[in-house]
Order: sequence, then structure tokens, then C-alpha cells
Amino acid sequence: MSIRIALLGYGNLSRGVEAAIQQNPDIELVAVFTRRDPKSVSVRTNTPVVSVDELESWKDKVDVLVLGGGSATDLPKQTPECVKLFNVVDSFDTHANIPTHFANVDKAAKESGHVGIISVGWDPGMFSLIRMISNAVLPEGKDYTFWGRGVSQGHSDAIRRVEGVKDARQYTVPIEDSVAKVRSGADPELTTRQKHLRECYVVAEEGADKVKIEEAIKTMPNYFSDYDTTVTFISEEELKANHSGLPHGGFVLRSGVTGLNKENKHIIEYNLKLDSNPEFTGSVLVAYARAAYKLSKEGVSGCKTVFDIAPAYLSALSGDELRAHLL
Amino acid sequence: MSIRIALLGYGNLSRGVEAAIQQNPDIELVAVFTRRDPKSVSVRTNTPVVSVDELESWKDKVDVLVLGGGSATDLPKQTPECVKLFNVVDSFDTHANIPTHFANVDKAAKESGHVGIISVGWDPGMFSLIRMISNAVLPEGKDYTFWGRGVSQGHSDAIRRVEGVKDARQYTVPIEDSVAKVRSGADPELTTRQKHLRECYVVAEEGADKVKIEEAIKTMPNYFSDYDTTVTFISEEELKANHSGLPHGGFVLRSGVTGLNKENKHIIEYNLKLDSNPEFTGSVLVAYARAAYKLSKEGVSGCKTVFDIAPAYLSALSGDELRAHLL
Repeated sequence: MSIRIALLGYGNLSRGVEAAIQQNPDIELVAVFTRRDPKSVSVRTNTPVVSVDELESWKDKVDVLVLGGGSATDLPKQTPECVKLFNVVDSFDTHANIPTHFANVDKAAKESGHVGIISVGWDPGMFSLIRMISNAVLPEGKDYTFWGRGVSQGHSDAIRRVEGVKDARQYTVPIEDSVAKVRSGADPELTTRQKHLRECYVVAEEGADKVKIEEAIKTMPNYFSDYDTTVTFISEEELKANHSGLPHGGFVLRSGVTGLNKENKHIIEYNLKLDSNPEFTGSVLVAYARAAYKLSKEGVSGCKTVFDIAPAYLSALSGDELRAHLL
Repeated sequence: MSIRIALLGYGNLSRGVEAAIQQNPDIELVAVFTRRDPKSVSVRTNTPVVSVDELESWKDKVDVLVLGGGSATDLPKQTPECVKLFNVVDSFDTHANIPTHFANVDKAAKESGHVGIISVGWDPGMFSLIRMISNAVLPEGKDYTFWGRGVSQGHSDAIRRVEGVKDARQYTVPIEDSVAKVRSGADPELTTRQKHLRECYVVAEEGADKVKIEEAIKTMPNYFSDYDTTVTFISEEELKANHSGLPHGGFVLRSGVTGLNKENKHIIEYNLKLDSNPEFTGSVLVAYARAAYKLSKEGVSGCKTVFDIAPAYLSALSGDELRAHLL
């Protein structure tokens, strides 16, 4: 019998989960829950779309609910609420609020006897896993994380809020020279500006003041003022033709030393190049949904992160198969 | 109270473990067991050297025994024997025999109520972990593993057995052009010869026939005949001056696709550059020794691999600390 997954929400990330499920024969998508009118939502697979009001009646028809919502307002409420009814997996990524989110989900999950896995994806998620393991293996060293080259949806949205901007796409770009220094083992101290560039492709409204737009972007606090930022105005057609994908990626490095005199250097690097950020993130969520299902079957309950889950739980293969083919 | 670790054997790997323990304040090295006369073994830290005959009397004075022996003859016997007395960690790396070794250790570990973690290091070990997780996340794709540039001790030993050879060092070198193809997402089919070169630095005995030595190396089955191999004769002084280290490394890549039409490509790469193979491997063993200790405290017993252990067990930090700083 397959693992029955349902989705809450149907944005980019949920579409990524929907596609990933097609690649995992042990898993099926049984429902997409939406806050909109279900008739207005058309999904790409043959999956029923159901109003979120009916969540409770699906309690015994879903093994794991995957939450496709955002970290700002959706997940802080939805994850603790939904884990009362289902095993859940979310991609909560507001680093500073993870301890609070963990506590809220843990309490509700333990009371209801479900598993809630939070902060799943690639960062947090796969990058966290590598950072954590690398720190345990090389306790003396330095961590570096670079993102990109890829589209930051948060930064693209920030540009769209500038007056006179019709549409925009922002690429985060790691600075090659700094990356090379880190890979060489030089352990540089890097400022925000030395780590990433921000490349902005902007479609201006007709008649808008482009000089003013460029100034507004480049001086925007938090988002752009600490970076070297380029602004390139393009047509709407060009944006569609050349910037419609959501590629991303990045890399985590740990540079550490060993030896009685700390004389030996080691560099661990984990590197992702992703054509589609939401589809890769969705694929990670599906693997952790499988883990939530297996843990729940074993009687486990409570909130978990990628740190708490033995890797074998992510796989459809048995322990014997894993040891024979992948160890 | 610290985690009390003991070592069985005192070769390169055990020296690596000894050094790594100095970097982990929650762990102490309490004994080095040897099959030799303990008086003949001088260790680099202030640790008692004890005859292997006294193992049993240390039963309650050691939390985890780390086995420094080799996979050919030592570990198949030692690990199942020692797990009767202690929690153990080994670096068993004969891939084809892992299922048998697992079964033997599992039986003895369950009977005695201990934890035995096998095949720990970087390959098997960290590389296996990445391969396994990457396969779970991207079920449709191709795996690639490259080793080097680094010293293969097995291949160096094989050269030393050739008549007329006094000493030798063999470097395994990934072929850049093939690596570039894999990183580009081209998913090439690569033969053994297309993946790695073998560079041999050889010190010949005085008066030895160098043409014959080179021929014997290059045609050696399993070790060299399937590879492009270079043989460079050097002096004993040069070998000591330029080839006395044991650097190694390598990388695991998974190239996979997602999307309803498999239209998006993703490349995951994990890359290690190690100045000292035994010290890095020793550092991994120490982290898993910590895990063996924690699992045993929780009442777990049996044989485990890197697939079966939640990453948090590797760390000296608490769940709260890990979530706050590394997630």
C-alpha cells in the first residue's frame, strides 16, 4: 500500500511536491487542500482539490500532510494546527524563529501523537545537515555558505514593490574570487559585500523614472544596500523569454584542521546546482514525508528536524538493499 | 563525565583517532590495546598501552572501542569478537563483504546488548551518506564517485611487491575532462580508464631493471591494467621530501531530473580535499563513537551503519543548540 500524501496549498512548492510524488512509486498524492474555491484551482495531476474546511474529515485518509505555505504568516499557524490531525512536513525557513516554531509544533505533535518535521528543503535542510555533520567531524574550523547563482523570490518581490516597477527578477551571485579563496583553504574573513553580488533585471512601467528606480533598489536596506547591485532594464518579453525559470543552488563549505599540532587542513564542500528550486525542494519534502510516515508507524511522535532523522528513513529501499548497493 | 574511548591497534588510522580525540573535550582516550609487546609501542599522548590479552578486564572502563585494524583479516574477526565486550566502531571497507560483516556484528551485538557501528569513514561513510540521501531525494538519476587526487595505500603496497622496487607511492587522479562532463549534467557513460589516472612514483633497488619494473606495474591486473598509468622513478630522498604525506579526497555526484516531463536537471556534489586521509577518517570515527555511546545509553543494541544514525547523535551539542545555530 502506498503512503498517502496530501498537500496544503498549491503554489510553486506544492507543484514541486506534486511532480516529485510521480517519481516515487511507493507514494501517492490523495488530495490538494486549498483556502480558495476548489473549483478555481486546477492541478496538473488527477488529484481531488478539496476545501481546507474539510481537513478534519480527511484525518484517516492521509498519512502525511505536506504544507506548501510560506514562513512569514502561513506556517507559524498552520503547522501546529495541522499536526493535531496529521503527520506533517513543512519548509519553515525563518532561521531566527525556528526554536519557537519547534516548541509549538512539538507540543501539539506530542499531544496528538503525530510526527511533525519542520524546516525541510535545502537551506534549511540539506545544507543544515552538511553543516551539522561537518562541524561534528571537524570541530575546529570555519563554515561558509554561498547561495546562487539563482533567483531569490524574496528579493524579486522587494523590487516589484518599488514605484514604477512592473516586474523583476533578482539573481543572487556568489563572488568567484571569494569562493576560490575559501576553496583554497585560506579561511578568509568575508563581508556581506564580498560574498554575493545581486543582479536585478527590471521591467519598468511605461514612462517611469529609471534613474529613480535604480537608486531606490540599490539603496534599499537589508535587501540591497550592503551589496554590489547591478540593475538592468529589460522588456517584458525579454523577462519572459530569459528569466522565467526558478533556478538556484549554492554551496556549504567547512574548512577545518586536524593533527596534534593542527597541521593538516581539510575542506568539505557540498554543492547544489538546481534548474528548479521548488521542484528540488519538493523532492526533499517528499523524502522527509516518507520518513514522517515510517517514524509514525514506529510509534514516534513530536517535532523533528533533519538532525533527528536517520537517513535510512528517507529511502524506499530496505536496510539490506541500502547496505548492499549504497554503502 | 567524558566518553571513554579505547583504541585497538596503533597504526595510521588509530593515530588519526588519537589526534581527533584531543579536539573533542567531551571525549577522552583511556587506553591503546596492542597485539605487540606494550612496552614496544610508544603513543603520542599520555595514554596507557595495554596488551590485547587484557581487553576483557577493561569491559567496564571503556565506553566505546574504536578498531584501527584492516578489512582484509583484522576486522572480520575483531569486530564481532569485541562487540561482545564493548560498543565498537570500525572502518570496514570491503564493499562486497559488508552484508556478511553486518550480520556477524549484529548477532554478537544484540546478544551482548552493545552497539556496533561498521564501515565508518569517508568511503564507505560520508560518501555513502551523500549517495543514499541524494538517491532518496532524486530517485531518477545517475551516481558518480571520483577519488583523489590522493595516495592509495593499497596501490602503493602493490607496487612495493614488484621485484626490484624499494619503495613507492601511488596517486589516484580523477580525469578532469570526465569530471567536467559530469558537472555539466551531460550524464556520460565512463569506463574505468576514463575516470581515473594512476600516477606512480617508484624508488628502484640499485641495479634493478627499470623497464621491467614499469612493465610489471602497468600490466598488473585489477590494480593498473585497466588504467592509464604513469611511472616515474625517483630517489629515496625525493620520495621522503615530496611524497611522505597521506593526502586524499574525492567527490560524489548525483545528477538527477525532476518535473512532470523530467525537464529540470539537478546536480548534487559532495567534495572532500584532505591533507591527511587517516586523520580525517579518524575524525569521522570519533564522531560515530560519540553516537555509539549515546545510542547505547538509550538502550539501543545491534549493528548500525551511517544510514541508521540520526545526525544529531554525532554532535556534542544539544538539540536546542543545533537548531539555534546550525539549522
